[in-house]
Amino acid sequence: MEEQLRELGLEFTKEVREDFVNFRADPLAVVYPRSEEDVIKLVNFAREKKIPIVPWGAGTSLTGAVACKGCILVDMRYMSSILEINEVDWYARVQPGVNLGKLNEELSKRGFFFPPDPASFFLCTVGGAVANSSGGMRGVRYGTFREWVLALRVVLSSGEVIRVGEPLRKNRAGYDLVHLFVGSEGTLGIITEVWLRIIPTPRQRLVALVGYVSSLDSVAGIIIDMRRSGILPEIAEYVDDEVIRALNEHLNAGLRKSGGGILLLRVDEPDSERMREILRRWGVEAEVLNDEEWERMYSLRSQSALALKASAESMYVEDIVVPVSRLVEAVRRLRDLERKYNVRMPVIAHIGDGNLHPNILLERSEDADKIFDEVARLAVELGGSVSGEHGIGIQKAKVMGEQITSHSGKRVLEIMNGIKRLIDPESIMNPGKYVELAYEINRSEERRSSS
Amino acid sequence: MEEQLRELGLEFTKEVREDFVNFRADPLAVVYPRSEEDVIKLVNFAREKKIPIVPWGAGTSLTGAVACKGCILVDMRYMSSILEINEVDWYARVQPGVNLGKLNEELSKRGFFFPPDPASFFLCTVGGAVANSSGGMRGVRYGTFREWVLALRVVLSSGEVIRVGEPLRKNRAGYDLVHLFVGSEGTLGIITEVWLRIIPTPRQRLVALVGYVSSLDSVAGIIIDMRRSGILPEIAEYVDDEVIRALNEHLNAGLRKSGGGILLLRVDEPDSERMREILRRWGVEAEVLNDEEWERMYSLRSQSALALKASAESMYVEDIVVPVSRLVEAVRRLRDLERKYNVRMPVIAHIGDGNLHPNILLERSEDADKIFDEVARLAVELGGSVSGEHGIGIQKAKVMGEQITSHSGKRVLEIMNGIKRLIDPESIMNPGKYVELAYEINRSEERRSSS
Repeated sequence: MEEQLRELGLEFTKEVREDFVNFRADPLAVVYPRSEEDVIKLVNFAREKKIPIVPWGAGTSLTGAVACKGCILVDMRYMSSILEINEVDWYARVQPGVNLGKLNEELSKRGFFFPPDPASFFLCTVGGAVANSSGGMRGVRYGTFREWVLALRVVLSSGEVIRVGEPLRKNRAGYDLVHLFVGSEGTLGIITEVWLRIIPTPRQRLVALVGYVSSLDSVAGIIIDMRRSGILPEIAEYVDDEVIRALNEHLNAGLRKSGGGILLLRVDEPDSERMREILRRWGVEAEVLNDEEWERMYSLRSQSALALKASAESMYVEDIVVPVSRLVEAVRRLRDLERKYNVRMPVIAHIGDGNLHPNILLERSEDADKIFDEVARLAVELGGSVSGEHGIGIQKAKVMGEQITSHSGKRVLEIMNGIKRLIDPESIMNPGKYVELAYEINRSEERRSSS
Repeated sequence: MEEQLRELGLEFTKEVREDFVNFRADPLAVVYPRSEEDVIKLVNFAREKKIPIVPWGAGTSLTGAVACKGCILVDMRYMSSILEINEVDWYARVQPGVNLGKLNEELSKRGFFFPPDPASFFLCTVGGAVANSSGGMRGVRYGTFREWVLALRVVLSSGEVIRVGEPLRKNRAGYDLVHLFVGSEGTLGIITEVWLRIIPTPRQRLVALVGYVSSLDSVAGIIIDMRRSGILPEIAEYVDDEVIRALNEHLNAGLRKSGGGILLLRVDEPDSERMREILRRWGVEAEVLNDEEWERMYSLRSQSALALKASAESMYVEDIVVPVSRLVEAVRRLRDLERKYNVRMPVIAHIGDGNLHPNILLERSEDADKIFDEVARLAVELGGSVSGEHGIGIQKAKVMGEQITSHSGKRVLEIMNGIKRLIDPESIMNPGKYVELAYEINRSEERRSSS
């Protein structure tokens, strides 16, 4: 194989890698394409040899989506150019390996802005974030990646290159395939170019508030009251006291502990007085932050998972969504699970849209997997989703299958699997995960229950 | 057949209908379901008899998407309840037959807002607008329907009911099927319930401006300058002098003609001074409108197509998108086509996002079809799209196929057709149109050119 890769003129290394939560990739080779042509050569090679092929951005995945064995890992680090920033048509055309933080710096110089900001923005690549349909702190106002991708170039398992979508906000030419590929976790093809929608840096004046709260329950109440009052924040984030402890310990944050954690808000100026009223109603003191303080809090918030990880041997990062109206119940049931399993789950949350990240500080084990699944099931039972922005990979395929069969119908899982087979008939694109895995688990459970 | 429908307990009539641009539906029967159960019964019946089934909302289609012969037309008028307006989770759950204007009235009473506003909002149904992924005047800021649909219940041709999506803004559970069904024009299934994302009525202060311009070219220049300056309007609409004449004649609009038409803008207050500067630079006088004047202009704008239609025997409504950076060229080429074919094409435009509606005032004929296609091809050649918001139906399938094969690759058309076959294997859902038709035309052209 090494010789063949060399003959194809492809650079490669032999190494074992781990993602952010220690899922292992033990590939036959890590290949470093420099161009779309390299990707095509590689895909043709992999297809002929029936070797699974897994794209790798920055390895910040949290679900095992880039774990594999006996595969080829496609490291996109050299396909990292910003090809075009179009200030009239309002898009950025980039290669998948470009760092998201770097893209935003370049945009900012020109007065533009790409809203989705996963906490890993300073590490992650655009390609990874598209494949994952990542979210972020501004998601409550601006949504996740899927709302900001206009078009993609993709190399399919056949070696064919297609473009899905048009670099236009409005386009009705055929079924919408862009949204199929966004969030497809490398299972439909390898992204080689991305058109992202950009907007001018917003001009409205925002007020940043930090509230020290006595419990996560009161935060849930505050968010529900904001919704009822029609306040749409730019940011509504939460970290609990355990996370604050980790931030203080590992990043010298010097944050005050208040029993229940910190609620971080950024709202339009005309909303700020009403917002403070709601906080007062819930007995929460709010401090207005100046720009520098705001930048610091935003940066600390985005490093929260890193800080937590530094204080634990191993960590499961959960990512559930519940309807905002069910937040109070979700929090209560999380606490029940903590008691039931005698485990602490420090919570980081995009609380403004009901997207919670309880972090389970345990070594990978069957028991820990069980707790992880129970948390996800709680979301499904409350009419929510097993994932809002981290995706499925291998870790959540089972419970995702349960969500789809119970909320959507078994036929939906079959359609999804049919789409995978239609686009990647030999299943060499990140096989055996996500939709395919959920479908297989569901089938084998059906067989078991019918025999 | 009539007896069988009666046995199934389904109401029906026998009649011939026409859509807004006189495409004809000559069905075996028009059936009026009162519930999802009725829809299932009807679909099972149609599948067994292999009768094409075509959903009908308000008949405001502009592309022949609801034209058919020997089909069953499914008139959704009795499935028109607003099932829930959730003021905490920010969605409206409605049946497909609900009138969009009525929904917005109900939302408005509660301080909420559903942004997409097709000009036919006072006529059209939510189901039709979803099936069509309709746009509207606020599209430049808020996008089209596809950005605002959270979830759908759909009856498939198998008679199975599925739900795609979750009533959550963030959801990563499986491939995104919602966006497949939004804009699928009745070709994948019949929508029986819709969850729309809603937001609080925006609080920012907006300034409405009307500019009397000397030519459409200068409007293109103004829009490009706005983009460069980072001004994102809520509304940036254009109608030319011919449209003004029709509005004056048929709606007593009393609008001034200025040689080039009217540019209607609504921008955030902090942007308004810079906006006026840009207008001055292009020699355009701008008047600031008070609320009442604004409401009137907005209403006149939304009735522009009706007014035009009243002054012509027959009309083709075009709907092309070009990159904003190519607007000037697009306008020039439209004028070239007018001269070449000696025909006037009054222009209504969502000019802010490059979405133009040149209206061809001709009787349906082969020659008129040819002009229509040439306008659409112009958009494709400029890197745009054959449709931004009106969809494809039968009228645009051919040029849509050309767009997809040239911009995206032939494989994309095959994948789209494969999805149709996967979800509607017997092709009874609005068959022979849109993707299926484009695929067939492309195949027969290939056969012709290879023989």
